[in-house]
Amino acid sequence: MSRKIRYGMVGGGRGAFIGGVHRIAAAIDQQIELVCGAFSSDPQKSKDSGADFFLPANRCYGSYEEMIKSEAALPEGDRMDFIAIVTPNHVHFPPAKMALEHGFHVLSDKPATFDLSEAKELGALVEKTGLLYGLTHNYTGYPLVKQAREMVLSGALGKIRKVVVEYPQGWLATRIEESGQKQASWRTDPTKSGAAGCVGDIGTHAENLAEYITGLKISELAADLSTFVEGRQLDDDANILLRFDNGAKGVLHCSQISVGEENNLNIRVYGEKGGIEWHQKEPNTMLVKSLDQPMQVYRTANGYLGAAAAAAARTPPSHPEGYLEGFANIYKNFANTIRARLEDREPTAIENDYPKIEDGIRGMAFIEAVVASSKGNAAWTKVG
Amino acid sequence: MSRKIRYGMVGGGRGAFIGGVHRIAAAIDQQIELVCGAFSSDPQKSKDSGADFFLPANRCYGSYEEMIKSEAALPEGDRMDFIAIVTPNHVHFPPAKMALEHGFHVLSDKPATFDLSEAKELGALVEKTGLLYGLTHNYTGYPLVKQAREMVLSGALGKIRKVVVEYPQGWLATRIEESGQKQASWRTDPTKSGAAGCVGDIGTHAENLAEYITGLKISELAADLSTFVEGRQLDDDANILLRFDNGAKGVLHCSQISVGEENNLNIRVYGEKGGIEWHQKEPNTMLVKSLDQPMQVYRTANGYLGAAAAAAARTPPSHPEGYLEGFANIYKNFANTIRARLEDREPTAIENDYPKIEDGIRGMAFIEAVVASSKGNAAWTKVG
Amino acid sequence: MSRKIRYGMVGGGRGAFIGGVHRIAAAIDQQIELVCGAFSSDPQKSKDSGADFFLPANRCYGSYEEMIKSEAALPEGDRMDFIAIVTPNHVHFPPAKMALEHGFHVLSDKPATFDLSEAKELGALVEKTGLLYGLTHNYTGYPLVKQAREMVLSGALGKIRKVVVEYPQGWLATRIEESGQKQASWRTDPTKSGAAGCVGDIGTHAENLAEYITGLKISELAADLSTFVEGRQLDDDANILLRFDNGAKGVLHCSQISVGEENNLNIRVYGEKGGIEWHQKEPNTMLVKSLDQPMQVYRTANGYLGAAAAAAARTPPSHPEGYLEGFANIYKNFANTIRARLEDREPTAIENDYPKIEDGIRGMAFIEAVVASSKGNAAWTKVG
Amino acid sequence: MSRKIRYGMVGGGRGAFIGGVHRIAAAIDQQIELVCGAFSSDPQKSKDSGADFFLPANRCYGSYEEMIKSEAALPEGDRMDFIAIVTPNHVHFPPAKMALEHGFHVLSDKPATFDLSEAKELGALVEKTGLLYGLTHNYTGYPLVKQAREMVLSGALGKIRKVVVEYPQGWLATRIEESGQKQASWRTDPTKSGAAGCVGDIGTHAENLAEYITGLKISELAADLSTFVEGRQLDDDANILLRFDNGAKGVLHCSQISVGEENNLNIRVYGEKGGIEWHQKEPNTMLVKSLDQPMQVYRTANGYLGAAAAAAARTPPSHPEGYLEGFANIYKNFANTIRARLEDREPTAIENDYPKIEDGIRGMAFIEAVVASSKGNAAWTKVG
Repeated sequence: MSRKIRYGMVGGGRGAFIGGVHRIAAAIDQQIELVCGAFSSDPQKSKDSGADFFLPANRCYGSYEEMIKSEAALPEGDRMDFIAIVTPNHVHFPPAKMALEHGFHVLSDKPATFDLSEAKELGALVEKTGLLYGLTHNYTGYPLVKQAREMVLSGALGKIRKVVVEYPQGWLATRIEESGQKQASWRTDPTKSGAAGCVGDIGTHAENLAEYITGLKISELAADLSTFVEGRQLDDDANILLRFDNGAKGVLHCSQISVGEENNLNIRVYGEKGGIEWHQKEPNTMLVKSLDQPMQVYRTANGYLGAAAAAAARTPPSHPEGYLEGFANIYKNFANTIRARLEDREPTAIENDYPKIEDGIRGMAFIEAVVASSKGNAAWTKVG
Repeated sequence: MSRKIRYGMVGGGRGAFIGGVHRIAAAIDQQIELVCGAFSSDPQKSKDSGADFFLPANRCYGSYEEMIKSEAALPEGDRMDFIAIVTPNHVHFPPAKMALEHGFHVLSDKPATFDLSEAKELGALVEKTGLLYGLTHNYTGYPLVKQAREMVLSGALGKIRKVVVEYPQGWLATRIEESGQKQASWRTDPTKSGAAGCVGDIGTHAENLAEYITGLKISELAADLSTFVEGRQLDDDANILLRFDNGAKGVLHCSQISVGEENNLNIRVYGEKGGIEWHQKEPNTMLVKSLDQPMQVYRTANGYLGAAAAAAARTPPSHPEGYLEGFANIYKNFANTIRARLEDREPTAIENDYPKIEDGIRGMAFIEAVVASSKGNAAWTKVG
Repeated sequence: MSRKIRYGMVGGGRGAFIGGVHRIAAAIDQQIELVCGAFSSDPQKSKDSGADFFLPANRCYGSYEEMIKSEAALPEGDRMDFIAIVTPNHVHFPPAKMALEHGFHVLSDKPATFDLSEAKELGALVEKTGLLYGLTHNYTGYPLVKQAREMVLSGALGKIRKVVVEYPQGWLATRIEESGQKQASWRTDPTKSGAAGCVGDIGTHAENLAEYITGLKISELAADLSTFVEGRQLDDDANILLRFDNGAKGVLHCSQISVGEENNLNIRVYGEKGGIEWHQKEPNTMLVKSLDQPMQVYRTANGYLGAAAAAAARTPPSHPEGYLEGFANIYKNFANTIRARLEDREPTAIENDYPKIEDGIRGMAFIEAVVASSKGNAAWTKVG
Repeated sequence: MSRKIRYGMVGGGRGAFIGGVHRIAAAIDQQIELVCGAFSSDPQKSKDSGADFFLPANRCYGSYEEMIKSEAALPEGDRMDFIAIVTPNHVHFPPAKMALEHGFHVLSDKPATFDLSEAKELGALVEKTGLLYGLTHNYTGYPLVKQAREMVLSGALGKIRKVVVEYPQGWLATRIEESGQKQASWRTDPTKSGAAGCVGDIGTHAENLAEYITGLKISELAADLSTFVEGRQLDDDANILLRFDNGAKGVLHCSQISVGEENNLNIRVYGEKGGIEWHQKEPNTMLVKSLDQPMQVYRTANGYLGAAAAAAARTPPSHPEGYLEGFANIYKNFANTIRARLEDREPTAIENDYPKIEDGIRGMAFIEAVVASSKGNAAWTKVG
């Protein structure tokens, strides 16, 4: 099939953060093309934003509704293949739903929706339409995260006993949402962010990472949420005990008031025979531990890695793969799965490896369980 | 006062582990002298063990009772000043009690006693006799741990909000207590170790470290204990939510089944203005974090450190201070406090800085709270 | 100016390595467009390679000569703006020269040419034509390398005294060029690689990094080249003493037989008042050292960094910037400088910050000096 | 043999640095006893210093001559077994010589003597007397340094090709010798330090470490010495190319003006099949590299280590062994070798593993070669 996969973007106008990340992620491999966008609810700003990427004005829309309708009216050879949703959480579900209803695949930023019921509705719609839905839990795109998953699922660590997963940040240690910092404002606003603050924003990444790598499900949890910054409406710190469906135990803690921490997502998994440790801030290193041999240092792009990790790397060892490449792997696999469909073939296992609506539903169930548990003074609460 | 401080050892015969550590810790600074011992309940083994250190046979006793009585009968100029207790947990209290009752100071391995009631009884006896009691929570002897405490107490980090303290080990990931490994055997035996396994052995170190550095008390906790190794009688893994008396929150987890972890005690403390991070495995580095400046790397023995850290170091920067030196700092301060008493003066603040019976009582209260909470399915339980 | 900057690629057909890196680097920011290529000397392979990126067959040429002539014949609105040269070393100069003679800017992989005389000829041609020439010494594109340069040039470290720069690799520790490994084959072939092997391939990166960060020139050097792998025709290891034009001293060593090293480029610079240390394998961390304060850890994308580092980052702190982003910064600045010219304005200092033909001449002079010095048994030899 | 090994100290009075280190190193294992000392040329200061360690006044001498004569006159059961020399370099040879001539073994701080001729004379005397001579190249006492040596000598890395050894410090980056800093004063004074400054003080440690680990000899070198601090009389920085007797190449650089470096001794050794890397500042970690497998992290005191490393550790894994323990291993082995002699048996290989006069002669030959080479503008110069 001799063309790029085409997408339209919802959100991501000038001054936004994650929209730019998505556009880079889509562009890196030169197999995906931005063809239109509803970058802003201000039509002029949407056009200006599109012009930054040389889009024609007539495909820079003032709303996602307009974009979806207009694109649907274009000939098949011209119109977008999927939409990328990069808006705040409360505007994830509506465009996703409408896009699916108009025959477009959807790639959405996380969390999938504003609440669990929306996520379930979306799940039903994905099933009904048969269209593709991807979710940018981007950390699962790192080569060594894929290696970790492959090793755990292959049994190399033995039965999993313990998982420690953390996502500390420090950027909300003071009340910067009062200063007009846009990213802080909507994330701390329950009408835009949802029932949880820190847990929705980054706790879901930690939850998704743990379930992706281990192949296990968190069956129940006991959560202690805190709001340390006075006047803030949502949690900015969470300490959570985990129990997994195979009997493993664990701890998940995330925070936006851990002064000096950047985006320090990290995970340790221990089985009966071995353990792994991975830190996002140095994502090309994974420690592999064993009962009685020296710890090993796995590094991205080496020959000893498995197929999934190999396919996820673009450069030689110690030419670091970064956040954008990991993010791009979600885009690459999602677009390749669309391409497979356009070529009327089954996607390969590697192509089909991207977070889906099921992950989105898990994430929303996790958020709801955490909030409920914390309201019950860290009562054990089932997830989903 | 022109002589070394003299001690007798209870336990620590040939083949023991922690006794040798205590003897090195006492010897390093050449201010403390081993003059007698009840190294073993087998009198011949006690004599043989003492001979390894050139002790005269008549001061190598077959029991601590014999040692305490015999030494008490010696002239003041000859007899020991204190006893060092290095036996398994169930033999901490009896010699400590007897020594105090016979006028000897006590330096004991941790945890202080077998259970909380013993610890309280010991506390009362220490108060009544006016004698000195020290406890080898040795990790508080590291120079940078002292620096951390000084910085937190000075307010450099602002009000403390979050504490994460961990002590993962992997050496009990399989049932090695069945193979006759002596250290494993008594630690997994509830008649010798007490109500908790992993939590008593290393969880108390984590608890003590957190309270030492922050100057806060854990007011309540919610604990999820596990025994992953089949047939084992005590916990080998613990995940615990913490609440501190100033409103701070935290997580403490410790484990002896975390495959590949050595003695990876570490702590992170976050306040309103800053954070610190310290890892025992590289104890001469402490990370200091702030709201908007680059992270700083504090290193042992540099001129920018405070008085307590300075006094605790014996070598120049990057000539690493190790575990034995940290341990020795407990001995040094304890012995110097005895010396101050012999010299009829007040000990300095630095001399007086060693864990005391109050820390021992806290540790036993922590163990009891953890066990009770876990029995209540991680119910919130007050400490002490 | 409402279009992307356009380029044609020389080399980089299917199976090549660095061509793909260049294409990603060009694509990331969505401001540069691949419009044509002479990807291979096999016309069909060139077309197939171009088809992978959806190029029309008529702009996939069988030779760079054909490409340059054909593109020059296209209307200004259609033809390429610059060529990207991604061939082995011996095919750097000819297309660069021809492109300049036909009015195209040039962005070339390093080293600039096969030997110094070619580089000087190219320098003269660049001057004569007034066209732009960029060289992908990509490591200077990392945000913290730019920060290092800014700090050194600002005098924050005081007068520079010592530089240690290393580039160890291990991939040529055995004679893999015999096995048909394409990357190894031409790099170890003096007819393709030039007078040096390891020194030309990676030593020049080290030299360029040292001169970029310090703003100094290596005035003379004493080099001891080795060929450890039997039968290999070029050096695979180099140890070099450096003297800089301000009196600073240094060491540069690079190697392709340092077993287990990946692309471990790193540099340490010491001045009278401070020092910096940077490692490519963890490129988002830079250590900043001072006379009597704790070492600081600078991290990419934080607010305390200077303008050049800020402009070079695309993601928040600890969302790692990788090799491709650093590479892309060379493309971005080069393309923005072309754009400035098209817009008839001066480029900003940040736009103008990319390696130029002067760097290329330095690199070739370095290679020749190293080879000459080593032939003279590490005799001191002037550079350039 | 039922007594401790006895020693007398030359130097190390109040206010000295390395004397205290030696005393701790001797004391740690409780097998060695300080029985006398000539701590200072001021008899009263010598007595006061001895009193700090509870020595009787009549064995605190005012000179090493007095000490050696007086001790020699004591009955065999009372007198010292060996002397420990902890004075500045120019006072190493005279007491060593005299002690040997009076039948005492000698343990000396490094470098062995003031110049090479003295070292050779000492070598002859050691041979003639048959007495023991040890040298505190203490870094060879670290467990993982012993492991490195064992692995290299066993052939695990294959034939050695390259060695990089560094010892950067920053404490002499300014002219602190002018401020009366005692350690700086004598080290920068050619009448006390010898022909070299930085190279004699720490370069010899690097040289010794490289030869100890590899079992190779540096056959020739090319050295570029610098004195960066104005007015200083000796080198404060050295960059040196190395060639080894098996054909391996290398780099040794040491510095006392590398701002911010502490005692950052480190080494990397690469062979045909593998490599090792070790850093003194984190001495319990050694990286082991191989052609195509993940790097391994060896850690002190694990079961997978060899006999020499096992014998050199006193605590479990991640209970860090520090500088003093490494130093103590020199004392332990030296004293055990004396004990073997007293017991009329051969020392074991492990007991016999400490630096000897041959190492001292190598060190002095190294210094002389470095100085000569540098005077010849980094001319290749043979070592020894």
